[in-house]
Amino acid sequence: MSSAWLLPEHIADVLPAEARRIEELRRQWLDLARGYGFELVMPPLLEHLESLLSGTGRELDLKTFKLVDQLSGRTLGVRADTTPQAARIDAHLLNRTGVTRLCYCGPVLHTRPSGLHATREPLQFGAEIFGHAGLEAELEIQTLALDGLQAAGVRQLTLDLGDARIVRSVLGGVPLDAAALTDLVAALTAKDGSTVRDIAAKCPADTRDGLSALLDLYGGEEVLAEARRRLPARAPIAAALDDLQWLATHLRVSHPEVRLGFDLSDMSGYAYYSGVRFAIYGEGSTDTLARGGRYDEVGAVFGRNRPAVGFSLDLKGLTGSVAIGAQRTAVRAPWSEDAGLRAAIRRLRDAGETVVCILPGHEQETQEFACDRELVAIDGQWVLHAL
Amino acid sequence: MSSAWLLPEHIADVLPAEARRIEELRRQWLDLARGYGFELVMPPLLEHLESLLSGTGRELDLKTFKLVDQLSGRTLGVRADTTPQAARIDAHLLNRTGVTRLCYCGPVLHTRPSGLHATREPLQFGAEIFGHAGLEAELEIQTLALDGLQAAGVRQLTLDLGDARIVRSVLGGVPLDAAALTDLVAALTAKDGSTVRDIAAKCPADTRDGLSALLDLYGGEEVLAEARRRLPARAPIAAALDDLQWLATHLRVSHPEVRLGFDLSDMSGYAYYSGVRFAIYGEGSTDTLARGGRYDEVGAVFGRNRPAVGFSLDLKGLTGSVAIGAQRTAVRAPWSEDAGLRAAIRRLRDAGETVVCILPGHEQETQEFACDRELVAIDGQWVLHAL
Repeated sequence: MSSAWLLPEHIADVLPAEARRIEELRRQWLDLARGYGFELVMPPLLEHLESLLSGTGRELDLKTFKLVDQLSGRTLGVRADTTPQAARIDAHLLNRTGVTRLCYCGPVLHTRPSGLHATREPLQFGAEIFGHAGLEAELEIQTLALDGLQAAGVRQLTLDLGDARIVRSVLGGVPLDAAALTDLVAALTAKDGSTVRDIAAKCPADTRDGLSALLDLYGGEEVLAEARRRLPARAPIAAALDDLQWLATHLRVSHPEVRLGFDLSDMSGYAYYSGVRFAIYGEGSTDTLARGGRYDEVGAVFGRNRPAVGFSLDLKGLTGSVAIGAQRTAVRAPWSEDAGLRAAIRRLRDAGETVVCILPGHEQETQEFACDRELVAIDGQWVLHAL
Repeated sequence: MSSAWLLPEHIADVLPAEARRIEELRRQWLDLARGYGFELVMPPLLEHLESLLSGTGRELDLKTFKLVDQLSGRTLGVRADTTPQAARIDAHLLNRTGVTRLCYCGPVLHTRPSGLHATREPLQFGAEIFGHAGLEAELEIQTLALDGLQAAGVRQLTLDLGDARIVRSVLGGVPLDAAALTDLVAALTAKDGSTVRDIAAKCPADTRDGLSALLDLYGGEEVLAEARRRLPARAPIAAALDDLQWLATHLRVSHPEVRLGFDLSDMSGYAYYSGVRFAIYGEGSTDTLARGGRYDEVGAVFGRNRPAVGFSLDLKGLTGSVAIGAQRTAVRAPWSEDAGLRAAIRRLRDAGETVVCILPGHEQETQEFACDRELVAIDGQWVLHAL
């Protein structure tokens, strides 16, 4: 039985100090989202596979654990992403005509880790606005994400903007098979010029030029002007560049301290994005802290094609990027049936203190909680003494 | 695609009003446990099957979803109960010699529901004390469970006590096959007299008498005296009855308002209990709200046989037993880039208010949040007006 406690790869226990920090972050995000008017929902971990994966693309399918439902014999999936579930709830259960803001926080499971050090059980927090097609929804979602990361203590935030319409429009009408398309998108995201040029060689001239240009279109706001010169003059591309310009202008006012970046060929993340997309990075890390965008088409499979924009992040990943605060101190109390002691302990706990009762026979043990005070009886009164 | 949104049986979305209540209960329990000195841990949803199910019995095995790990080819289980995971963490990761108090809160999945209306995805909160063999640990765990249920607003609590040693000792030395034993334990728990007597007919006389007596041994504290007269005079039974008497005496002092019940043949729940066990019920419901007990043997498979006592409950089930509070009111704000408005919104949110920005074009929509005030500009100042 010596290996009974070894966990699967990319799966880990979260021990007390980190668990406490994650719980604090969880509350901060939920309270912040509530302050913006986002309503909390808790979609299930398990769904019928076709419901969980409708319209979400192959990457999410590969990431999803499948199992069989003994009650129905049908195949179930364990959610790998909560966003499509929120779209389902908006489309079917709430069924509102106006704007709906939803948020959620819970674990998701991945068959494969997203990176070398990534967990296969992220704790996903996310927020979504349904029912508004305008850029004000993007701005609110990005503002919420930036405010939350700043409140969590992440410094020197960079917001990278892109738009799924640009790559799609450049590739529009080009007959590429699914495998070549997947390779091309991955190569564009990774700025792998030789692969992009190999595939582009089989494309018409304007697509070839567009793909070649996309490889260079990342950097600061000057990228937008360069894109207007070098990308094909097509309506979706012009609309995407206008939208990115509008957001940049507004973000510079609302968050002057945040660095803005642009990457017009980045298509990483899930396939459901249909418009503006963004990723947020913190100081000294190349890992994405939060990712989001517009995905107007996800609700369609549930019978209602509602505009939608949102973001999500992994709270476990976030704790790696922020300092863990000092442990709260605690009070030691002897074990006794004395009514006065029980009352004193209750008063301290009601006031938010941790009071650890020393169980009989364990008086000499070092406590893991940082007890800096002790309850002692003096002249029949239970009082606090420094340790 | 019309059925894409139908969820599997006994699986449900939790919508905003209930989700908010569950989140409030979650925080209450975690804060209460912290006040007692329980440290939060977050064990993973997935583990190798042999680690997840070591020493926990067949019932938990049947409840556990299994799937294959693509990274290793090994079989994984999705946890159906977090208690054995906490024992693993105590045994291996923390590896302390003294008392360790751990708590956790997260989803578990069940292949089959535990009852007609039970969810297959309970949100399990639990607390465990490791390293103390004395009854003070039982008393602390039961006190925590009762305090938490009272704080959650459950009225007229009943605490039912039993002890796994009693049935085991009555059956000690009797050669019953596993199937007959399972049937017998189920029949004893259900007070199914005819099945118990059928199986008892094949047992020696003192076991037969003991089983027959067990069928009657439920009720108030008088049950303990009756048990001493009617059950075989064996050391484990006498020890169990002494322990139950000690706990009853102490609980009557610490929680005089709680009704105490005894059921000496109840063996429901998981097979790992080894001593005193308890179940708590609330007003007007036959569903167990919380269940716990001593399970000294679970850590043994991880190489350390530590005394352990704990309890757990389903927060989703608990919301069904308590009233949902009134929705918090919110403030409506127009969408505008005015710096004064942005500052006013931020101040309100920092003070804990929900401020919903009305996105352009949605001014006439009824908001789901109960907005009772509005931010309006009067003489260049943004002020709150009642709606």
